[in-house]
This record gives sequence, structure tokens and C-alpha cells, in this order.
Amino acid sequence: MSTEIEKDFLEYVKKMENFSEARSLMFWDLRTGAPRKGVEQRSEVIGTLSTEIFNMSTSDQMKEYIEALSESADVSEITRKTVEECKKNYDRNKKIPEKEYKEYVILESKSEAVWEQAKAKSDFAMFQPYLEKIVETKKRFLDYWGYEGHKYNTLLDDYEPGITVDILDEVFGNLRKELVPLVQAVKDSSQQPRTDFLFEHFPKEKQRQLSLEILNNLGYDFESGRLDETVHPFAISLNPNDVRVTTKYDEKDFRTAIFGTIHECGHAVYEQNISKDLIGTPLCDGTSMGIHESQSLFFENMIGRHPSFWKANYPLLQKHSNGQFDNVSLEDFYRAINVAGPSLIRIEADEMTYALHVIVRYEIEKGLFSDEIEVKDLPQIWNDKMEEYLGVRPTNDAEGVLQDVHWSGGAFGYFPSYALGYIYSAQMKAAMDKDLPNYGELLAENNIQPIKEWLTKNVHQYGKMKKPVEILKDITGEGINSSYLVNYLRKKYGEIYQF
Amino acid sequence: MSTEIEKDFLEYVKKMENFSEARSLMFWDLRTGAPRKGVEQRSEVIGTLSTEIFNMSTSDQMKEYIEALSESADVSEITRKTVEECKKNYDRNKKIPEKEYKEYVILESKSEAVWEQAKAKSDFAMFQPYLEKIVETKKRFLDYWGYEGHKYNTLLDDYEPGITVDILDEVFGNLRKELVPLVQAVKDSSQQPRTDFLFEHFPKEKQRQLSLEILNNLGYDFESGRLDETVHPFAISLNPNDVRVTTKYDEKDFRTAIFGTIHECGHAVYEQNISKDLIGTPLCDGTSMGIHESQSLFFENMIGRHPSFWKANYPLLQKHSNGQFDNVSLEDFYRAINVAGPSLIRIEADEMTYALHVIVRYEIEKGLFSDEIEVKDLPQIWNDKMEEYLGVRPTNDAEGVLQDVHWSGGAFGYFPSYALGYIYSAQMKAAMDKDLPNYGELLAENNIQPIKEWLTKNVHQYGKMKKPVEILKDITGEGINSSYLVNYLRKKYGEIYQF
Repeated sequence: MSTEIEKDFLEYVKKMENFSEARSLMFWDLRTGAPRKGVEQRSEVIGTLSTEIFNMSTSDQMKEYIEALSESADVSEITRKTVEECKKNYDRNKKIPEKEYKEYVILESKSEAVWEQAKAKSDFAMFQPYLEKIVETKKRFLDYWGYEGHKYNTLLDDYEPGITVDILDEVFGNLRKELVPLVQAVKDSSQQPRTDFLFEHFPKEKQRQLSLEILNNLGYDFESGRLDETVHPFAISLNPNDVRVTTKYDEKDFRTAIFGTIHECGHAVYEQNISKDLIGTPLCDGTSMGIHESQSLFFENMIGRHPSFWKANYPLLQKHSNGQFDNVSLEDFYRAINVAGPSLIRIEADEMTYALHVIVRYEIEKGLFSDEIEVKDLPQIWNDKMEEYLGVRPTNDAEGVLQDVHWSGGAFGYFPSYALGYIYSAQMKAAMDKDLPNYGELLAENNIQPIKEWLTKNVHQYGKMKKPVEILKDITGEGINSSYLVNYLRKKYGEIYQF
Repeated sequence: MSTEIEKDFLEYVKKMENFSEARSLMFWDLRTGAPRKGVEQRSEVIGTLSTEIFNMSTSDQMKEYIEALSESADVSEITRKTVEECKKNYDRNKKIPEKEYKEYVILESKSEAVWEQAKAKSDFAMFQPYLEKIVETKKRFLDYWGYEGHKYNTLLDDYEPGITVDILDEVFGNLRKELVPLVQAVKDSSQQPRTDFLFEHFPKEKQRQLSLEILNNLGYDFESGRLDETVHPFAISLNPNDVRVTTKYDEKDFRTAIFGTIHECGHAVYEQNISKDLIGTPLCDGTSMGIHESQSLFFENMIGRHPSFWKANYPLLQKHSNGQFDNVSLEDFYRAINVAGPSLIRIEADEMTYALHVIVRYEIEKGLFSDEIEVKDLPQIWNDKMEEYLGVRPTNDAEGVLQDVHWSGGAFGYFPSYALGYIYSAQMKAAMDKDLPNYGELLAENNIQPIKEWLTKNVHQYGKMKKPVEILKDITGEGINSSYLVNYLRKKYGEIYQF
């Protein structure tokens, strides 16, 4: 009995996943070269597929499957976790009255348009009424969804299952305490790296060749992927056998393409190495935003900004460039690509300061949902926090509270996962060092294989079969702990800036 | 009342078209660079979408729409023709018992695999039992579908609505009578063009640049399309605002890319200029295989092999090539790209002999479905006809009866549309000459606009709103008439081969 319905359920879920793969390909195509005039009709097609997927995920049929299989003991582990995912999604979508949800979708799209204008004019007042409405609606939705402890916990759970305000308060609190003086020390150092040689003309086609070679050196599988050019770099998984990356070429700053490529490579290698047994289920995906980011950041920083990696790859860079590094020592190059310091814009921040940008946003979001902060006060609070944590103060809202799109789309709870990615990656690196004490040598030989295998064994293969906290616990034996990140940063930047 | 159901019906049809656009993009992607390992899962996704479209086209809901709207007087013209299309499709799919259809699909896929092996071994006997079964099944299907006059008429109607055996017997009969002596005259001429200079090394990237410029000169809209490289060139329409072309580069023969590109450009310009009012309906497509082919052939031959076109574009070709044409006069070049003569393989045939290859196939297909020809006799009949019409005799089945994939997939009735494309294009050209007496001058100035406008006004805009015969009648005032093609070929090749 249970076998028959389990089989039907898996077929049903597979159909949803197949529609989803089709939709993903359309997104990829839209960004990589779809003709301009076709965009409008394409959006309609994406809408049709999205509606179909949504309808299937909230159908009576789905309800029946969930009811029949949730308590069943004799289903496979994959089925059990798939049912869990579907149930979470079903509950989330069904608890909001349809009318309110539709109104919210309209509000969201208006709000994004207004945010764009407000940012261009650097005028928070223009955006304020929309943001107020969005926060208000989200709070009402939270009453429908329910929450344990802090309201914000339910929002966090969307992006990072298992993470709560209690955890973040402690983890981010400790991190902030340690980072603020570190940033100050770097800023005050008299040993600022030379960077002038970074900005010479580096032809796009050469950067592309270099990107391809580096992807290859990093274990990206080109038989399961491809590299294209886009305005904003991204990685997208259609399925583990087709995970594509894109990058952006700036002929006046090669770092955009190279570190962008390495970052996306980390996301892609994660997806390429999820167990093929999970194809056709919603488990065939990174387990959370934070764990995903931990992989891209591991590649970008733990590998791509490690001195040994460049020992192996600096000659490659020199070969492809127009001679801009001919008179630059490896040591000077290493220092230059690790230049750090406070700045106003999150997406331009370095690995040392990045988490502080996130903490500013986390504290504000938490305050909004506990009614301790009002939307109207955001510019002031934002600027004060930036000054306190990073020592820089925005002079207008565009470079302050209006800089990110997230809030205009109601994506509260998203930002923390960026910082968690840094914390996780440092915890993983500390654990990896025990298993691979020759880590630096491996990089110096461009021998990524053991590192990739370690990550696949401990992280990649599971997809959503393990929650983020389980992944971390099984690797490190402990929970989230920001001290590994702090130690890593302090050591690294202490050496570079000599304090 | 009727308005509500009409609206619902159009929504329903639009959803099918949207699924279909998603599927088309997946086909395009598979051929233009999808990673190898992702192909299997991708095929599953295509299967899911195809099943969905098929189910919608044969659903009870569709039946209700057809019944409610077929006789309705107060629906729009677009709705009326859309219902007609849906009804044709519904009837076609519903009349075959499901079990028999499923068996046939399996037979077809087996048969294609066997054909591939049989062709490789040049062994018709291996393929014979499969082909017999396919013909037998198709005959049974024809009893389900019904037919008027000749059984083969129903098969023809799939590709070229309105075309019958009676029409083709007359048209192809006349054509054959005229072409056979023409081919002989060309073969016997002492004035064979020089072609040695065609085969020098022409770098791929240069060919690509040239292809892009020629597409642009031919009025292909790059804001509604793009050019990619594939093993087999094709054009694919996602919707009129997104019609993509591909080409193939042979560095030892630039003609592959250039004439391939021009040919696909003709298909694409057709699709790009279908009225936008038809988007979201099954009418938003070329009206038939034959009319589609008439557009690609118009571009390839009436434009791309016209002396005036090269008057304008020969300098471009010379500029992009590695000097291979530096000492070749425009006149010699023109003669070289119009070299003609009998050959064994249809897809390598020139515009003079092509239709004869089709006529061989037409006569055989007709004989199979009127029980005058048996499958076992095909190699003999094929070779005899080739010798009689083209004066060449295959020495094995691979270069004879096994050369085309069509029959292994049951695509009987398809071949005639290729020859109809030639006939239509010559008829259109004769009509166009009256409206645009300065045709040659326009080409010599690379001024395609008036030609494109003429084709859009008379052919492209209508999509499937007009049947092929209507298109032709409205342009020429008459039905299918092969004498225009004969006159065109006789004049052109008489000049080139001087007889």
C-alpha cells in the first residue's frame, strides 16, 4: 500500500522538479544572451511554469501525499525528507489567505520599483511608506505561520533552518567584539599593500582563458557545466550534471572576473557533487544559503586568496596578462589581492569587514520584528551602526540604508546567511587542517582533488539530506563558533599588515 | 457566454504554447552547448513537458472547448482558426487507440536505431522488417484517421495542408519531364565552372564574422535572435521576438557556413515577421513545411546565389577570407557557387537536381501506400529511378535507399514539401518581379528591405492564418505551377553552362 503511494508521490515530485529545471534554464538563458525583444514573452513562460509548480505544491493531491506519508515508517530516508520539505513548503504557502498573498505580491513588485528610484535619488523618505507596509505585512504573515521565541526566528528558518536569534546574538555578538578592533588595527597599520599594478589593461579574451584554466584547476567539471559572461556573475544548477557558472570581465580590474569565477566555482562544485540519488527531489540542492555561501567563500578565500594557490597559479596569470605583473613579486601580489579595510558598500567589502556589514543589517531586522526599531528611524540607526562598527559614516542613503535590494523584496532573514558562510568556512577549514595537514602543499601543486573530496564527503554529497547544523556538527563536533573565523582573520591580516 | 469560454480557451492554449516555448529552448540548448553529462536528465524534462502538452491537447477540457467553439459564429477569426488547429490535432491523436500508439512509439525508436546501424553497414535487409512494420502500422492508422481519395493524402496533409496526390502527380510529373533533359544538358556541357579556389583554408572566426554581417545585410533582426554554432544548422522560433539560427563552419569549404546561414536566415526572417497578434496561439508558426522551405530557399538561391547579391557582398567575402579570392573574378566566383550536376545524396544536391531526388521518394511513398510497391523491392526501385531521372546509380544502400532518416521515424509525406519549397519560391519570385522590377539593383545595393517587406506582406505575417494554397493563390492568382521553377532553372543554368 505504502509502496504504491510512495512511488506516485516521487513521480509527482519529479514532475515538479522537471518543471523547475525548465524554468532554471530560462533564467540562465535570459541572463546569458536571450534576445532583448523576446524578454517579455519569456517572462510569461516563466510565469506559467512558476504557477504550475506553485499549484502542484499546494494541491489537494499534495496534501493527501503529505498526510499519507508523513507518519509512515516504511518509506525510504529520501522519501521521508522529501515529504518534510514538501510539508514545510505546503504549510508556508497555504497558511496565508490567498487574497492577502496576492496583495503582497503586488506590493513587493511596486516596492522594488520604488526602491530603485529612491536609491537613484538617495531619498529614503520616498521608500519609507513601502517598507513600512512590507514589514507590517510580514509581521501579519508571521502570525499566520507561527513562530517559537522571537518572531524573526521563522524568517531566519527560511534561509538557514535551525538558526535562531539566540544563536545569532551570541555568535554575531562575539564576532563583532573581535572584528571591530581588528578592522581598526588594519586601518592604522603603516604597512598598507601596494595595489597600483592591479588596474592595468587585461584583455577580456585573456581573462576568459585564464578563468577557464582556473576553473579546471579547481576541479570544476566542464562535462557537467559551462562558463558564460553576464552582468552579474552567478552559478545555477539545473541538476548535478548541469551546473553552469558565469563571470564578468572588467578590463581595468582583472580581480572582478578571477575572484568572481572562483567564488561561483565554489557554489558550482557543491552542486555538481550532490549525490545523483537525489535527482528529481527537492533535496537535490544546497542545504541552506549559509552552507552554500560557505563553499563559495571557501573557494574564494581559503583557496583563491591563499599564498600557496598563487604559488601554483601566478605564472598562469602572468602568462595571460599583458605584462602587468612582470615586475611584481609573488609576495607583493599576494598582499595586493588581500588588501582590506572599512568601506560603505557591502558587496564591495573584503573578507575581514564583510561580516560587520551583515551584523548591522541583522541587528536592524531583529529590531524591526521585535518592534524595537521603527522604519522611519532606519537611516539614522544605519549610519550610527556603520560608524560604530566600521568607523565610516555614509553621507547619503544611497550609500547607506538604500544600498541593498533585499528589503524591498521582503527578504528579511537572508543577510545573516552571508556572514554564516564566512563563519562556517573558517570552521570547516580548521577541521580540514587536521585531516589534510599538507593543505598548503596541495594548493602549491594545484592538487585540489583531496580538498574537493573532503568537501564532497563532508558537505556536498548530502544536498538537503542534512540540515546546516548537522553538517557542521558532524564535521567539527560543535555548533556555530565564530572564533575560528576570528583566529583566521587575525593571523592572516596580522601578517599582511604587520601588527 | 461565448466570450467567457473563448477567453478561457485562449488562456488554455496559451499555457500549452508557453510549455512548448520552454521545450524549444531546451532543444536549442541541447544542441548549442549543454554539458554532455546533463543530456540524460534533460531528456526527461523534455519528456515531462511533451507529456503535459499532449495531455492538454487531448483532454476532456479540450474536447469541451472544441465542441463549444467550433460552430460558434461570434468568435474572433484568430480563435476560429485556433480551434480548427486544435481540432485537427485532437482528432489525429484521439483516433488511435492508446495501446497501439504506445507500441508504435516504441517501434519508431527501435526502428531509428536499427536504421542507423543498417546505414552504417549498408544493409537494407537488416532494416527491412522494421520498415515493413512501420508502413503496416501507418496504413492501419490511416484507416483510423480516414482519408479522401488516396490514403497518402492524409499523410501529405500533415506537412502540406491542402496538397493531394492528384496535385502532386501533375506538378511533379511536369517538373520531372523538364528537369531530366536539363540535368543532362548541364552534365554534357563543355563549360564546367572552375571550383578549385573554393576549398582553401578559411578560418572559423572569420567565417563567423562574415555570417554575422551577412545575416545583418539580409534583414535578420539580432534584437530578436542570435547566431550559434552546431553540428547541423537550424533555425528555431521560441516566439517571433526570439528566433535563433545556427550554422556550421567547415574551414576547408566556406560554402557550408555561408549558404547554411543564408538558408536558415530565410526560415528565421519568416518566423520573426509573423504577426505579434498570433503569439500564444498555435497559429504563430510557419503555415507549412513547404512554405517554410520556400522562404529558406528564396533566401539561399534567389538572393544568396544571385549575381547581384555577390556584387554587393563579394568584397566582404574577400575581406574576411585569407586571400583565396584575390585573383578570382566575380564572374568566376558566381559560376563556382552555382556549380550543378547529378549526385547520389539528396542533402548534398544543388537547386537544379534537388527536386528529382524528392520525386524519387514521392513516387515510392505513394506506391507503398497504394500497395503497388512492397518494402522488399525498395533498393531495386530506388536505384532504377535514380538512374532514370538523374543518370547515376547507387552502388550500395547507404548511398541509396538508406540515406535518409525520415522513413525510420515514419515521416511519410514529408519529402514532397522540400520540392514544393523550390516550386513555391520560383512562383513567388516571378510575382515579385512584377512588383519589384528593380530586384537585381536592390540586391546590388544590399537593400533587402523592399524584398523583405514584400515577403512579410504576402507570406510571413499570416503565420498559419492562411493555408499554403491560399498564400500562393493570393500572390500569384493561380495554384501550384512548376513551370516557373523550370523557366528559372533553364535560364540560369543555360547561361552558366552555355547551352
